[in-house]
This record gives sequence, C-alpha cells and structure tokens, in this order.
Amino acid sequence: MDHQLFVKMALQGWNTQVTRAEKYFNALSEADFQKTVAPGKNRIIYLYGHLTSYHGLLSETLGLGQAMYPELAPVFLRTPDGPLVNAYPVEKLREYWHEVHDRLTELFNALPAEDWFKRHNAMTDEDFANDPTRNRLSVLLSRTNHIAYHFGQLVLV
Amino acid sequence: MDHQLFVKMALQGWNTQVTRAEKYFNALSEADFQKTVAPGKNRIIYLYGHLTSYHGLLSETLGLGQAMYPELAPVFLRTPDGPLVNAYPVEKLREYWHEVHDRLTELFNALPAEDWFKRHNAMTDEDFANDPTRNRLSVLLSRTNHIAYHFGQLVLV
Repeated sequence: MDHQLFVKMALQGWNTQVTRAEKYFNALSEADFQKTVAPGKNRIIYLYGHLTSYHGLLSETLGLGQAMYPELAPVFLRTPDGPLVNAYPVEKLREYWHEVHDRLTELFNALPAEDWFKRHNAMTDEDFANDPTRNRLSVLLSRTNHIAYHFGQLVLV
Repeated sequence: MDHQLFVKMALQGWNTQVTRAEKYFNALSEADFQKTVAPGKNRIIYLYGHLTSYHGLLSETLGLGQAMYPELAPVFLRTPDGPLVNAYPVEKLREYWHEVHDRLTELFNALPAEDWFKRHNAMTDEDFANDPTRNRLSVLLSRTNHIAYHFGQLVLV
C-alpha cells in the first residue's frame, strides 16, 4: 500500500509535467518551433527533441527495456542547438515524442510498485546498498523536475 | 522504513533545488537582480521574492506552523513584476530567503516520516479520504517542480 501510494504520487507528477509539455508542443505551428526561448538561446524544436531524446533513454536507464531513438542523443543531448537539428523535422519529432511517451506509460503501468524501489542501471549494486534512495523512482522524480525546468523556459516564448 | 525512504527521496529533491537556486541568487550583484529572464519578462528580483513568498506560506499550507512573511504574497504571488517590488531591496529579500528556508529545514527535519502522508491544510478530510495522494509530501514534490520551473528561466540570464 505504501509503495503504491508513493509510486502513484510520483507518476502523477510525471504525467502532469508530460501532459503540460505535450499540450504546449501540440498547439504550436511549424514556424513557432523555430522561435528561441530567449535571444540567443535554444529553439523550441531543440527542446522538443531534447526532452524526446532524454525520455527515450529512460527505458534503458530504468532497466525496463531498450533505449528508444538513441540516435537523437548526439544531436539533442550532447550538442547544443545548431544545424544538426535540421535533420529532424517537427513531424518526425512529434511521432517520436508520442511513441516514446506511449511506450513509457505502458512500461510504467506494468511495473509493480515495489520494483520502482530497485536500483536503476546507471549505478552499481554496491552504491545502491550504500544509498537506497538512488532507485528507479528517484530517476523519475529527477526527470520530472527536468521537464519543469524546460517548461519554465518554453512559457517565456 | 518505507515511509522514511520516500520522505528522504522527496527531501533530497527539494534540497537539491533550493540549494541550486540559493547558490545562483547568492552569486549575483545588486545590478544583476534588475535583469529580466527574457525581454519583457520577470526580473530576477521578482523571482527571488516569488520563491521566498511561496515557500514562506508552505509552513501554513503543510499545517506545520504560521506562514512566514505573508505580506509578500500580494506583491510577489498575486501581482506580476512591477513597481510594488521596489519596496523590497535585495538585502531584505536575502534575509527573508534564508530565514524561510532555515525554518523549513527545521520543520521538515522535525516531522516524523509518517506525518508527511497526512493531508495538507488546503484540502478537506473528505477529499483526502477520496485521494490519499494529496498529502503533505505531494505539496513538497509540487513545490520542488516549481523551483525547477523558475530555475530554468533564471539560467537564461
């Protein structure tokens, strides 16, 4: 029960942030995606790809399955906004966004509450023994904050 | 144990966001506080007061004590950035920020883990019975996302 309650709270937070970002992106025109969040800063299309890419890797980070669209990482995670982004039109990213989040929803709903408290793939068993807060759920909380961070930028446009 | 683990995770998230924001604000010059996060958007000083005000109310929202500096709310929560802010010089807000967060740390550390799962003051017993995820801890998670949201804006400056 307790496990379930906390997982439910964390998933609610995640879903709130994803839904809010998705609504924002879905309401934009093609031209809007070329706008920057502030002069000289990231374009909206970059942040769209950035969140899609980071969330696509989440299935692997959590040890729930293969990463989705890992080819986005060099462009949207490891490189700042620039000409590489042009290989990804909005329609393609939109498709990826929906596939990534639909798949995560499936995986998250299928995961028993207690499994959220197991270690994630980005750490060793030893580290986890020393700090059991570094579990799958802590990754989800951190990614939830990460969406909020960028959403705060998107609303400035 | 489980309660404690959840609470520890949520508090780690809160502390990470507060510390990150605090370091940012502490490194600014007086003149920096007058900069806007984007053209025509909030000044840094407004966001400093905004977070201080919102967090000052948290003790009351959580039912842990009186609100701190509720007089900030009309200026920093219920009104957009504008001339009212000038009544609060940076040094005053800095003092408030530290008092608010020191007090919250005391209150949070003193709260038994299971009490985080009780309802917060902004809802009725009936509502809580219908949805036990709406507890104190969910307020903390939400405020943590709120800091991340504004921190994403602050780093644009």
